[in-house]
Amino acid sequence: MNGPYGIYGEKLNLSIFGASHAASIGVRLTGFPAGFPVDTEALKAFLSRRAPGRNAWSTARKEEDLPVFESGLADGVTTGEPIVARILNRDVNSAAYERLQRIPRPGHADYTAYARYGGTMDMRGGGPFSGRMTAPLCIAGGIALQYLASRGITVRARIRSIGGISDDSVFTEAVSDKAFPVTDPRAGEKMMAYIAACRTEGDSVGGTVECVAEGLPAGIGGPLFEGMEGRIASIVFAIPAVKGIEFGAGFRSAEMKGSENNDAFLIEDGSVRTATNNAGGILGGITDGMPLVFRAAFKPTPSIARPQKSVDLAEMKEAVLTVEGRHDPCIVPRAVPVIEAAAALAILDAMLDVPFPEDRAPETE
Amino acid sequence: MNGPYGIYGEKLNLSIFGASHAASIGVRLTGFPAGFPVDTEALKAFLSRRAPGRNAWSTARKEEDLPVFESGLADGVTTGEPIVARILNRDVNSAAYERLQRIPRPGHADYTAYARYGGTMDMRGGGPFSGRMTAPLCIAGGIALQYLASRGITVRARIRSIGGISDDSVFTEAVSDKAFPVTDPRAGEKMMAYIAACRTEGDSVGGTVECVAEGLPAGIGGPLFEGMEGRIASIVFAIPAVKGIEFGAGFRSAEMKGSENNDAFLIEDGSVRTATNNAGGILGGITDGMPLVFRAAFKPTPSIARPQKSVDLAEMKEAVLTVEGRHDPCIVPRAVPVIEAAAALAILDAMLDVPFPEDRAPETE
Amino acid sequence: MNGPYGIYGEKLNLSIFGASHAASIGVRLTGFPAGFPVDTEALKAFLSRRAPGRNAWSTARKEEDLPVFESGLADGVTTGEPIVARILNRDVNSAAYERLQRIPRPGHADYTAYARYGGTMDMRGGGPFSGRMTAPLCIAGGIALQYLASRGITVRARIRSIGGISDDSVFTEAVSDKAFPVTDPRAGEKMMAYIAACRTEGDSVGGTVECVAEGLPAGIGGPLFEGMEGRIASIVFAIPAVKGIEFGAGFRSAEMKGSENNDAFLIEDGSVRTATNNAGGILGGITDGMPLVFRAAFKPTPSIARPQKSVDLAEMKEAVLTVEGRHDPCIVPRAVPVIEAAAALAILDAMLDVPFPEDRAPETE
Amino acid sequence: MNGPYGIYGEKLNLSIFGASHAASIGVRLTGFPAGFPVDTEALKAFLSRRAPGRNAWSTARKEEDLPVFESGLADGVTTGEPIVARILNRDVNSAAYERLQRIPRPGHADYTAYARYGGTMDMRGGGPFSGRMTAPLCIAGGIALQYLASRGITVRARIRSIGGISDDSVFTEAVSDKAFPVTDPRAGEKMMAYIAACRTEGDSVGGTVECVAEGLPAGIGGPLFEGMEGRIASIVFAIPAVKGIEFGAGFRSAEMKGSENNDAFLIEDGSVRTATNNAGGILGGITDGMPLVFRAAFKPTPSIARPQKSVDLAEMKEAVLTVEGRHDPCIVPRAVPVIEAAAALAILDAMLDVPFPEDRAPETE
Repeated sequence: MNGPYGIYGEKLNLSIFGASHAASIGVRLTGFPAGFPVDTEALKAFLSRRAPGRNAWSTARKEEDLPVFESGLADGVTTGEPIVARILNRDVNSAAYERLQRIPRPGHADYTAYARYGGTMDMRGGGPFSGRMTAPLCIAGGIALQYLASRGITVRARIRSIGGISDDSVFTEAVSDKAFPVTDPRAGEKMMAYIAACRTEGDSVGGTVECVAEGLPAGIGGPLFEGMEGRIASIVFAIPAVKGIEFGAGFRSAEMKGSENNDAFLIEDGSVRTATNNAGGILGGITDGMPLVFRAAFKPTPSIARPQKSVDLAEMKEAVLTVEGRHDPCIVPRAVPVIEAAAALAILDAMLDVPFPEDRAPETE
Repeated sequence: MNGPYGIYGEKLNLSIFGASHAASIGVRLTGFPAGFPVDTEALKAFLSRRAPGRNAWSTARKEEDLPVFESGLADGVTTGEPIVARILNRDVNSAAYERLQRIPRPGHADYTAYARYGGTMDMRGGGPFSGRMTAPLCIAGGIALQYLASRGITVRARIRSIGGISDDSVFTEAVSDKAFPVTDPRAGEKMMAYIAACRTEGDSVGGTVECVAEGLPAGIGGPLFEGMEGRIASIVFAIPAVKGIEFGAGFRSAEMKGSENNDAFLIEDGSVRTATNNAGGILGGITDGMPLVFRAAFKPTPSIARPQKSVDLAEMKEAVLTVEGRHDPCIVPRAVPVIEAAAALAILDAMLDVPFPEDRAPETE
Repeated sequence: MNGPYGIYGEKLNLSIFGASHAASIGVRLTGFPAGFPVDTEALKAFLSRRAPGRNAWSTARKEEDLPVFESGLADGVTTGEPIVARILNRDVNSAAYERLQRIPRPGHADYTAYARYGGTMDMRGGGPFSGRMTAPLCIAGGIALQYLASRGITVRARIRSIGGISDDSVFTEAVSDKAFPVTDPRAGEKMMAYIAACRTEGDSVGGTVECVAEGLPAGIGGPLFEGMEGRIASIVFAIPAVKGIEFGAGFRSAEMKGSENNDAFLIEDGSVRTATNNAGGILGGITDGMPLVFRAAFKPTPSIARPQKSVDLAEMKEAVLTVEGRHDPCIVPRAVPVIEAAAALAILDAMLDVPFPEDRAPETE
Repeated sequence: MNGPYGIYGEKLNLSIFGASHAASIGVRLTGFPAGFPVDTEALKAFLSRRAPGRNAWSTARKEEDLPVFESGLADGVTTGEPIVARILNRDVNSAAYERLQRIPRPGHADYTAYARYGGTMDMRGGGPFSGRMTAPLCIAGGIALQYLASRGITVRARIRSIGGISDDSVFTEAVSDKAFPVTDPRAGEKMMAYIAACRTEGDSVGGTVECVAEGLPAGIGGPLFEGMEGRIASIVFAIPAVKGIEFGAGFRSAEMKGSENNDAFLIEDGSVRTATNNAGGILGGITDGMPLVFRAAFKPTPSIARPQKSVDLAEMKEAVLTVEGRHDPCIVPRAVPVIEAAAALAILDAMLDVPFPEDRAPETE
């Protein structure tokens, strides 16, 4: 039994605790390799990419999101013991949320959490449904990213679209150091202008994030419930607001013929490669050595400043709700590192099932 | 540790065994409620919807796919013991597959299975990567569908598109009894003509399946790794050829504003409902009482009759492959009951976490 | 969620299905190394040590207990796919058990199974509480024993006591080939005579089994819930009739001083060893390289021919029960291979957590 | 994958983090019922029974062991979110332990931890092998005990023996409020005198703890890996120094005949009971409604003041070790609440599988 919140991983065991307005939020991770030196400065920089309050398109809530390690690191090196890290919740303003238990926000979990837990759960600030719960995911994922990088595997994401505005440029370089992580700066300008316009209207907007993992050997994953698509999907859907995921050509492959969609095999520098990558690097649930590619669809932030039709659960009558509080007009920019973190955890979990090529014992006669 | 093949479920524990050309394939399911009378004739009829060899758009391989129950049923009633059922593999013709271990089929798992298992796994007929592995899933799912129906919950799927041809009609009635399960017969005619044309060309084609579950109470699922989207995605991606999944408005919601995408709450017949259903019946990973809606994208069958570019793994040089054997030009029609089975198992698993409304003890003062 | 019957293992995933009077009983095992050639003749010989009907101290029920492999073996070699094997139930005589649902046998699970499952479970022949359920455990365990032997690890058990008669001789050699597996033949004679006397009285008798695993490297197991004692205990208590387990000096160590109980370390042939083995080869839940030693206590078979006081559950009044049917006066001799099987599975499961010494990659600078 | 430290529970999910000399030690518990008011004062009192430094027979290390709740409680009531609680490690004196990495203490995990983890794990103060790791277990167990008590189930333990001195008096009343928790004060006097004598000699001594759970309904547990004995054993063996466990008559039942050991059923006040309780309240792995009784054997504390034979791992030669630092001459008195905590968690976990009688919906026609 894993719930509530659940547990992720087969070789890793990842769980999250806390809630938006609890004493702290945190993560527990086991199965991570021992003896790995964590670059804590790089980890903080990674977390700051997700942190709120940094610019015009994110909420004004300010949290430094500094992780405190309770266990699992000694002198910055993983010990093999469970990694437990917390982030203190400091800037908590519960008042704005009080009314939401009675008049649920459309598009948000207020009503469904009530239906599920009957009022026992601490829902201030969104409780465990808050986007803030992705901060602990980023602690674990940030360490996983560092570990993968040390083994030659890079995982990078970008904003692929905001509203209907798409960045279709080739995604060859990491854009992590950009405040607005797109590849094509002109598309980025349009997106930022659109977000600003939505904010002015008291509205919000959705978008898609694209993620590419390179350096993966062929042979990671497995059939049926061990497949890479399912393993990645189940952690990506743990991110609030994700409503779709596709791998490689994804939904577009449903429109293709086999002769178009099949990626021809070829030999390149002595290795098996494919001419195209409609498979997104995954065949039969197993990596084929090509870049692993997926896109996730984020719905627009449900909390908007405009009056919305809702219901008063106490009186069971219709009501108009105007949400106060601090909210992002678009969470997609901040979601980019979260997608990287989620992908890194899924990939590391699957790789730990199979020895890393350089860790394999030489075959004996 | 769950692999290989993995295990599905939190309250249910579902695993699949066997391989395409092994003695049998089968399923083990625990956690299913005891005392439920299984309608075995209806189960056979359900399985026959997935079975091959029935019509022009499916493979000529004929298997009756009759399940043999080894455990868990006494006089047709579930006993609470593990449900174990097998399907014998009879019509096995391995010869056509021999060459594929050396020259892998583009788009298929031949190469990646080799990279993963290094030749130890019995890959004849596709081994555990065969679409045939969905038959045991349908045994378990067929029973889950019957159980859900007995509690007032219906799960039904249809072909939503084939290639670029879409059936956008309203999906109000089950189409399970149709040989080609679409809602709009005219769209269906076009789709069938397109599949026939692809077959004539020695080609194949992909498509999408849409699934709707009705009768679900609000309050099923949970935050983070307990969310309905992730639980459904992880079983749906276990179905070979699925490359994408979206819930409710899905990828389209990424193009919307919050004011468009948010579903307004209202009161209808004394119950909380929403005016629209962009959420696909799920908010914060938890059902809201509206129909749960998702769509899965299937890539075209990779096995096509046309010559394709591949590589000879023994000599590490490029090679042209012409696949023999029996294959579906389009697996989407047969995938419709598989999607229903997968959805039913995910929903039942999540519902068993929460008492069914009629099983809840009355509140005491 | 693992129940009913549960699941065993962290790297292995072992589950049992069927019931005493179902179509078959069987086992599913995943995580077992691929590419291992199973000696099926040796496996049958191992299973025959547990099989009933062979001699004076076991039930007259005759089953050949031949395993049928449905999956996971190709040409006798493990493929990495789930290993699924069944044993058909042939010699089923349900009539004798009918009355027991109403008047439960003292010491047996008739009453508690009724309290747990309310009559839904198929309890004929003891249902899943039958000692017969250890046959599938022995299939999995027999393969595990072969695998461990191939890596230089031997697991062997003997009867340590029957009633109050103990075999305290040194246990250096395997006694598996003996019909009555004791080390000291004279103690064995006394035990057999005592069993025969109990049978004549229509009574039964308990005993203890001692198990020793040799060849284990130091460093298998872990702290807290990963400890070897807990991992072995949880599979040994799955064997019906086990009511106690102790490791090394066990309960006797509770009477000792630290200076007596602590095993002094010494160097022997360049390796760390201990002068005594009160720890039974386990310190802090982790093997120390000394023989792993434990003893399990079996209660006497509850089914005896003598009239016993019970209750009529239908009328809720006291009743006298005389049990018919076929039962062992002492199951301890047949339990010896079952203990070996259980120990081998626990040890293999723990060893798969840690690379076998010969599989470890050489350390790099 | 659960390790290191592992995870306990099927409906509960219990894990422990930290190490003796880390920033903190703590516990994560999910699956615990929501809406339960925790009596934090009673919890502190319970923890103080385990805490060190209170009297003549325990270590001089002083820790207040006050739990800090990070998540899962709001205003002292469980919210359904993961319960995470920490205890800060304050009084840390690492110097005494430095030498032990090189010259391992006999009877302790120094050598085996090294063999398992190769020096990566932080072993100061015993790392995760320290008895201090039972403090987080007591936080979770203390809450479980309160919950069970609110449902009419009491779990209480006592010292049953120290060295060879046994308290065989009838165990009807809780002895939790006693500094030295025995039933027979005269036996207690002898035990305390013996511990004092051992301390004077620089030696230590083992003992047994007996635990009784009353108020359990019949029907908790299951066959095979779901059995109560295995579930209790696997958490009890997580307690350092436990080397044996037995249920009911336990090892003594191995000396009995069936006619002696079988507990006759009878009707008492309209309920099914047994005349004796050799089964310890468990038949076929399932509770029978009688008191659940078990005993655990604790080896003597391995850390003694006397010089002991050990080995120098760096030079691979024999060496004499004199252990400094602070240690209990007998941990059995402090182990009594730990056994209660472990038993409560195992029982609650099993009870959550089956609705509590008062929570069951009335049967409908």
